[in-house]
Amino acid sequence: MTQGTVHFRLATRADVPSIVRMLADDDLGSQRERHEDPLPETYYSAFEQIDRDPNHELIVAEQEGVVIGTLHLMFLPSISFQGGLRAQVESVRVDKRFQSQGIGSAMMEWTMERAKQRGAYAVQLTTHTSRKDAHRFYERLGFKGTHLGMKLRLE
Amino acid sequence: MTQGTVHFRLATRADVPSIVRMLADDDLGSQRERHEDPLPETYYSAFEQIDRDPNHELIVAEQEGVVIGTLHLMFLPSISFQGGLRAQVESVRVDKRFQSQGIGSAMMEWTMERAKQRGAYAVQLTTHTSRKDAHRFYERLGFKGTHLGMKLRLE
Repeated sequence: MTQGTVHFRLATRADVPSIVRMLADDDLGSQRERHEDPLPETYYSAFEQIDRDPNHELIVAEQEGVVIGTLHLMFLPSISFQGGLRAQVESVRVDKRFQSQGIGSAMMEWTMERAKQRGAYAVQLTTHTSRKDAHRFYERLGFKGTHLGMKLRLE
Repeated sequence: MTQGTVHFRLATRADVPSIVRMLADDDLGSQRERHEDPLPETYYSAFEQIDRDPNHELIVAEQEGVVIGTLHLMFLPSISFQGGLRAQVESVRVDKRFQSQGIGSAMMEWTMERAKQRGAYAVQLTTHTSRKDAHRFYERLGFKGTHLGMKLRLE
């Protein structure tokens, strides 16, 4: 699975520390992740759940054998849209050292292609309202910001 | 599973026509659903997929044995938030004949309770930017509209 010079594959357990490092490496992520050695076991148990579910694809992007990006693609069956399958993408990150090289675009183009292959009629995502650059990035790819994404933390 | 006078249970195949009727019965839904007799088979094949996946709960709300509402609750494992489990709710509808009676609130309170029971740290949803009443409704329940929800239709 290759897009430009970027190669895509399912993440393995050995990739979890790289994935957590990329998730932790920004303003929002640094407040909520624990990129420690060893990693908290909760990351690995989540990985096992994702890995055994065929509707989830935790992906790493590689360039010359080095992991430079990650995304989590999920396929959600639904009664709505005439029983249509939706693709949802979360936790999209490009390693900071490799940003502004078109890798994010390659990752999203791969995602759209993969979603089509699996028969999804749409790809959906949410991005924090503060990430204005991300909004423009997704708009350039054809996404429309038609929805308000709302969250409730449970105690 | 009861909240006030509203009773909640997993939907069965026999509930699919009622669910589709409620999804089709508004401005956005009427453009995308086909509430016909018999229903298009795609609705039933989606139901089968949802029904066999323990991370999906397609729910109907009943009052005195009559289906008056529906929601689709899904549990999404993720590496982010320290491998946290998220609940996502979609396709929330109250039968028009039973609206403005607090049934929507009862449904969402049930949803939050169910998400806690299953160990989710948050509930997330998106609503169309045009549904201003829905935004206020969810805000009253404690949801915060922190995200932009973006969608891309695939051809």
